This record gives sequence, structure tokens and C-alpha cells, in this order.
Amino acid sequence: MEDLTGWLKLQQAAIEKALKKHLPRGNCRPAVLHEAMRYSVFVGGKRLRPILCLAAAESCGGTLEGALLPACAVEVLHTYSLIHDDLPCMDDDDLRRGKPTSHKIYGEGMAVLAGDALLTEAFIMLAQAPATKRYTGADYIAELAQAAGSKKLIGGQVLDLEGEGKSLSKKQLVQIHEAKTSALLTAAVKLGGMTANATAKELKCLEQFGYNLGLAYQVVDDILDLVQTTDVLGKTAGKDLVAEKSTYPAIMGLEASRKEARRLTENAMDALDGLGKKGARLNQIASYLLERKF
Amino acid sequence: MEDLTGWLKLQQAAIEKALKKHLPRGNCRPAVLHEAMRYSVFVGGKRLRPILCLAAAESCGGTLEGALLPACAVEVLHTYSLIHDDLPCMDDDDLRRGKPTSHKIYGEGMAVLAGDALLTEAFIMLAQAPATKRYTGADYIAELAQAAGSKKLIGGQVLDLEGEGKSLSKKQLVQIHEAKTSALLTAAVKLGGMTANATAKELKCLEQFGYNLGLAYQVVDDILDLVQTTDVLGKTAGKDLVAEKSTYPAIMGLEASRKEARRLTENAMDALDGLGKKGARLNQIASYLLERKF
Repeated sequence: MEDLTGWLKLQQAAIEKALKKHLPRGNCRPAVLHEAMRYSVFVGGKRLRPILCLAAAESCGGTLEGALLPACAVEVLHTYSLIHDDLPCMDDDDLRRGKPTSHKIYGEGMAVLAGDALLTEAFIMLAQAPATKRYTGADYIAELAQAAGSKKLIGGQVLDLEGEGKSLSKKQLVQIHEAKTSALLTAAVKLGGMTANATAKELKCLEQFGYNLGLAYQVVDDILDLVQTTDVLGKTAGKDLVAEKSTYPAIMGLEASRKEARRLTENAMDALDGLGKKGARLNQIASYLLERKF
Repeated sequence: MEDLTGWLKLQQAAIEKALKKHLPRGNCRPAVLHEAMRYSVFVGGKRLRPILCLAAAESCGGTLEGALLPACAVEVLHTYSLIHDDLPCMDDDDLRRGKPTSHKIYGEGMAVLAGDALLTEAFIMLAQAPATKRYTGADYIAELAQAAGSKKLIGGQVLDLEGEGKSLSKKQLVQIHEAKTSALLTAAVKLGGMTANATAKELKCLEQFGYNLGLAYQVVDDILDLVQTTDVLGKTAGKDLVAEKSTYPAIMGLEASRKEARRLTENAMDALDGLGKKGARLNQIASYLLERKF
């Protein structure tokens, strides 16, 4: 298996190109809205979710190209959630990916609308994705909309806001991370699998993988928020402490959190067994995410 | 053809029942989010858009039942747009349908999230709507998402905000109304037609009908904002004047606006010719909307 870094760069380039193609032009009317939409999508980011979507398609024998529209849809939906999370009436954050957040540049009203438009755009993209023998466009949309809906992604943001200043149990923290992070990562890999016409058994493997990887990712995020600088992270470091948010390191300490991240990553890797050799790329990515520094 | 008022009441009841069934329960976690979602959906409203969806299905030989999920999706999406439009960072309105707006009760952050969740829910509902011979679930979703997207509904809200305090031409005003009102009304009737497996020709009739009806509806809205009281409207009357918004009466005077509303309604009715006798219900509704007092 070729070098992961090279592969990641290739996929990132393919995703950038597809996002540029499928998002409405910046000069569409109203120009300021379309400019704001593109600003947040292209301000940077690791493109983790779309990359997972592409790798999952590969892991089920599909093509990267067949998974590109769902991959873009997931990234665009993720971007909407960041814009709204950063609003003054939510987490009130000025910095994201090392750049001013949407509302700092375009104002609050426009940031709300740019987020709304990106969420809507995600479904426009998914509705164009080619159906397979087992899955229709409506199946893709149901998968992403459920993950992004009131019981998962949005519900997680509510629980997160409610938890500020309170001391949460580990169980409560896991519930928030399941909803806020795992749900969308799981949808990303399942959508990739669906575009590859995955069997129910393969989808189940991807679901288990996404769930555990999402939790591991969030533990690492909590650790990095504590030990890294704002410069390296590209977003305000130490903000969990300021917002009095319960985090893994706060609840179980730094060393136990590192162990927990490793355990969850191993769970994710175990789930790939059902995919055979084709799961190797996802395995590499899981390992890479565990070791990341930002 | 039976009495319109009786028919409207029957359809409203069917829509209420379907909304109650298809929206997540109020006791789902997080409870406050689901409560906020249901509050805005059930606070009242004429259910105009879902009724148009049902009537359009009938006008193309379909069943009311077959159109219920798309009808609910359109109403839920409309509700999201009202919640976000009423936010302090947008139109800043305290009253909607005679009751406090979402952010007055639940706070700004929760109102943003409840709107996000309803928008997402609309696509969950549409993904469950049965496909027909000519149209897939993905077709329904593309139709609604385009109408709700950055070039239509959301774009219209941006143009509306940008136009405050400026003197707009009639052409600019029509552009705003096309995007803010006609697009969603047009999607409502087209979706109804699609669930009835409408031909391309029938869909074209519905599109022309929805477009003109939407513009007529907005002219009447402008007139009522000027001549009615807050009590009768259930929303703050006279707010266009306060926000220095360009309106039909402001640009062309009250009498010419009434004539314009009549002309647009007649255009809408003319578009129904292609549907034959089955278009009678939509014709009745157009007439009813022209004469409405709130």
C-alpha cells in the first residue's frame, strides 16, 4: 500500500476541485451570500470527512469518483455546522482554521444564512449522486439527514451548550461526542460504502468503524485543545477550559485519555476485519488521526 | 365542486395529524430542542403551502394521501425560514402568528438550532415519500432544496435585508418576491404534481400557477401589512414602514397594488387551463387568497 501522505494529498486535491465545481459560483446573486458560503468552505480544513467517504468507497470495491458528490455533501454540511456553532449566540468563537469566523467578516445574519444555504446545498449535491443497485439517492439523503438531525449532530450541539459550566459524567460526555462527532463521521463512511453498492454486512463494519473512530477523534481533540497552542490548532486553544466544558482530560486525566483514544482507535480497526484487505486505507487513516498534532 | 372552506378544514386537519406523526416527538432527547421545533410548527398558521401541495396532487389525478409527506416537508421548511427570519440578527420580530417568536421563548442559540433541525427534518420527510414512475425521492429533494437554496428562498432573504432603507424599483421588488415567496409556493405545487406522477406539461402548468400565485400572495401581504391591525394579522402590522422596506403599495400606491394582485391571480388561473376541470380546486384557492383579510 502506497504512502498515506501522498494519497491524502491526491484526495484533498480531488475534493477541492469537486467542491469548486459543485458549489454555486461566487458571482451568483446575491454575491455576498455566495461569497460567504465559499469563504467558509475554502478557508482550509483537513477534509477528514470527505476523505473518509472516499476511502470507505474504496474499501467496498467502489471508485473514488463515484463517491465524490457525497464526499462534498458531507464536507459542506460539516462547514455549515461550524459556521453556526461559532455564532455569538452559540460558542462565540472568532477564529476557525486560523482565520476569522464567518460572522466576524460577514455579520451574524449573513453567517446564519450562509450556514442555512450550505446545509441546503449538501442535499442538492446528494440528490445528484448516482444511485446504485442497492441504494437510491433518497437513501443517501436519509442517511446524511438523520446524522445531521435533531437527535444527532444538532442535538449534540444542544447537549454541549447545556453542559457548559456543569460537571458531566463520562457517560454524558460520550453521548455528546456520539451525537456531535461520531454521527457525521459514521454517515461519511457509510455514504462512501453505499456509493460502492456495499452489502448490509459491509455497511455494518463501516458503521462500527465510524462510531469508534469518531469517539477517538474527539478524545484526541480534547487532548490537543489542552496541550497545543492556538497557532498550531488554527482555532482558539484552551477554550474548553474557558467555557468550563467537561472533557476527557478533565474527567479522567491526560494519560488515561491517551489510553482511551488508543483503545477506541483499536476498536475502529477491529471493525475493519470484515472488509478484508480492502480496509487497509481506513486502517492507515485511523492510525494517522490518533497520532495527529492538530 | 364542494364548498372550499369545508375542504380547507379537512385538509388542515389531515396536515396537522401528519405533522404530529412525522415530526420527532417532543420528549425525544434533547427535550428542549424538540419542544422548540414543535412549538413553531404548531403555533398556528394557515398551512397554505401544504394545502397547495395537496390540491396540486389532486389536480393531476393523484391522491391527497400520496402527497402528505411532501406537504409536511414544505410546511416544516417554511417554519424553519420563519424562525431564522425573525431572529434579532435578521428581521428582529417578537411576534409571529399571534405568539412570541422562537428566540423570545427559547433564546437565540436554540432558535437557530431549532430552525436548522426543521430544515434537516424536511429532507428526512421527503426521503420517505414514495417514488412514482416518473419521479424518484431524489427528484423531490432536488426540487425542494433548489427552491429553498441560496439562489431562491435564502437569496431572497439576503436581498430583502440588503433592500431595507433603500428605495427599490418594481423590478427589484419582484426579484425579491420571486425568490422569497414564489419559489417555495411553486415547489409546493410541483411536488404535489410529482407525487401524482404528473407529465412534464402538467408540471409546467403548475410552475406557472405557483409563480404567479406567489407574486400575487406577496402583493396582498404588502397591502395587508399596511391596512390591517397586528391583532388581525397575528404578526406585527406596519413593520414594512418601520423597517423602511420597499413594498408594492409604497411604489405604486394602494389601488394599483390591488389591481396588480388581481392581474397576477388571473395569470395564475390562466395557467390552470392546461389541467382541465381538475384544476378547479387550485382556481378556488387562488381566488380565496386574493380576497383574504389576514
